[in-house]
Amino acid sequence: MTDQTVSVELGERSYTIRIAANALGEPAGLAKFVSGPDALIVSNDVVAPLYADRVRASLNGVRHELVVLPDGEQSKSLQTIATVLDHLVAMNANRDTTVIALGGGVVGDISGFAASVYQRGVNFIQVPTTLLAQVDSSVGGKTGVNHPAGKNLIGAFHQPVHVLIDTTTLATLAPREYASGLAEVIKYAVLGDIDFLTWLETHMAALREQEPTYVADAIRHCCKMKASIVANDEREQGSRALLNLGHTFGHAIETVAGYGEWLHGEAVAAGMVMAAVASGLPNDAVGRLQRLLDSAGLPVAPPSLGSEALWAAMQLDKKVQDGKLRLILLRALGDAFVTADVDESALHAALALADA
Amino acid sequence: MTDQTVSVELGERSYTIRIAANALGEPAGLAKFVSGPDALIVSNDVVAPLYADRVRASLNGVRHELVVLPDGEQSKSLQTIATVLDHLVAMNANRDTTVIALGGGVVGDISGFAASVYQRGVNFIQVPTTLLAQVDSSVGGKTGVNHPAGKNLIGAFHQPVHVLIDTTTLATLAPREYASGLAEVIKYAVLGDIDFLTWLETHMAALREQEPTYVADAIRHCCKMKASIVANDEREQGSRALLNLGHTFGHAIETVAGYGEWLHGEAVAAGMVMAAVASGLPNDAVGRLQRLLDSAGLPVAPPSLGSEALWAAMQLDKKVQDGKLRLILLRALGDAFVTADVDESALHAALALADA
Repeated sequence: MTDQTVSVELGERSYTIRIAANALGEPAGLAKFVSGPDALIVSNDVVAPLYADRVRASLNGVRHELVVLPDGEQSKSLQTIATVLDHLVAMNANRDTTVIALGGGVVGDISGFAASVYQRGVNFIQVPTTLLAQVDSSVGGKTGVNHPAGKNLIGAFHQPVHVLIDTTTLATLAPREYASGLAEVIKYAVLGDIDFLTWLETHMAALREQEPTYVADAIRHCCKMKASIVANDEREQGSRALLNLGHTFGHAIETVAGYGEWLHGEAVAAGMVMAAVASGLPNDAVGRLQRLLDSAGLPVAPPSLGSEALWAAMQLDKKVQDGKLRLILLRALGDAFVTADVDESALHAALALADA
Repeated sequence: MTDQTVSVELGERSYTIRIAANALGEPAGLAKFVSGPDALIVSNDVVAPLYADRVRASLNGVRHELVVLPDGEQSKSLQTIATVLDHLVAMNANRDTTVIALGGGVVGDISGFAASVYQRGVNFIQVPTTLLAQVDSSVGGKTGVNHPAGKNLIGAFHQPVHVLIDTTTLATLAPREYASGLAEVIKYAVLGDIDFLTWLETHMAALREQEPTYVADAIRHCCKMKASIVANDEREQGSRALLNLGHTFGHAIETVAGYGEWLHGEAVAAGMVMAAVASGLPNDAVGRLQRLLDSAGLPVAPPSLGSEALWAAMQLDKKVQDGKLRLILLRALGDAFVTADVDESALHAALALADA
């Protein structure tokens, strides 16, 4: 199957995720999820020239405007939110207006946050165009922007009314960006589904070549896992934290290497290896994870940034995020858990990977 | 009774409103609602010198900081939100930090919105010090700031974890501000409780002299009515709109007169008279409302701004707010309803009050 629908069950905030090759080409594919008279498409200067026309066509005559932001993480600021809000005001948007996010995770996070605060909340639709956004950030309602002191410090939980995933948009993604998305795909397998991990080992070549059936199946599987996790813990008071597997180490890598040096998924890939080592997993399990990451074109260890620098960055992350260091560790591949009780020597071994 | 507690029933977001003379003097009165290790008190340069020390004492040793904003509506901006967020970042606030709003409606709206977006939402407590905030804006979770194009265009629904109302703080309120709060008290009677309207007629002199028993009783009654309305319609998709009685006319008066010329409650008072006329209520009912407003020291008609200017402002309000003109009208005093079906000649009669 290359045509899939996944439901996210959140009571009155429930919604569907449609996954299909050429989903953007279906008649009124987006229009039927716009309940009011108009829409604002938010995109960036890389994605808009490629796909804005397809979104416009899919709106089937719904009145709409388009705001194009600069591509990149530096757009995720309160200033950009003000820009999007100014556009909504200028078009006389009301509570029935729909915001449509067309792009990757940055566009989705900005659009969703702007939609959550305009008139205390208007509808929004996600049209994610990167693999990372399709399997992770477009689902689950986390929205927000960065503060100079830290990523995603300002934001809201605001669920979309629909997520439309057109897998053909992945064709224009840079290979490194696509691989970065595969890191999040692998993350789902490592945190909770060993059968999916085996499936990924078998079909990684097909995934890298973007064979439509395999791509759609992988995305559907990830969305189903995320939908289930989010349905159980929408506001991340417990099990939703499992989705952060590899991310505490990964954020430290991104920070110390300098934002943009390592792509998010690359840092998460190395972070998952560090989490596996910090969990005290046997060498064959760590090796199996590394082989899978390598087959996806991803790094299998952190760069030589030094264990002390990484540890300092993790401490800062901890302070801002939570008040205490909690890590996502593994009992085995496919079985993650949250803990504040970390074995010191295993943690040192993980950090030492950055001393190589 | 001068000591009252009202519950707002919103499932897992339920909370209590404590109303007492000297509530701020009770041991650990605020500390017991702070679940984390620290708090940020947000206040303004008029209220902080008067009451910040009492809030500090009521925190009973909880680590805290204080941010003091300029008094006034012009503080309700996205820039001020950024200032409060910067303070939270600078104190290493985490998801367990509590924001405490000490002041009137402006401080409450700013603090609540900042609390709603910091790390996607932290707890906040309302300590309203104006009558208007005590009977209206501190209860119900509406938070937000203004956009140059309109009031409260940017915001969130974010319920407090507690509202602490110390009625003795009203003693320092300017008489005009206090009367402005009485307009919102009268609004509750007019929109839904004719017995309360009779009670207000009987005890207005005692209320104007701030006799503690009567003040606490009036506040408790308003909070109970608001709690019930909010519990039934948290996000204002229906009956909560009744709380806007007099506000569409009132906002137009505020806009055309120039913000700050008329206090919000004064404009709402005149707006309620206009709503009564637009409802086609008989003269004796309109007169009864005007006598009650007059006894509270409030205006009983709009200023001579011209019906056309007011109508233009209402059109603008309509466009931004909703897409169509809906008004809160009255079947009788004590019986309000929402309608988009307004009698033209009655509406003209109401607007003509501004041609006098």
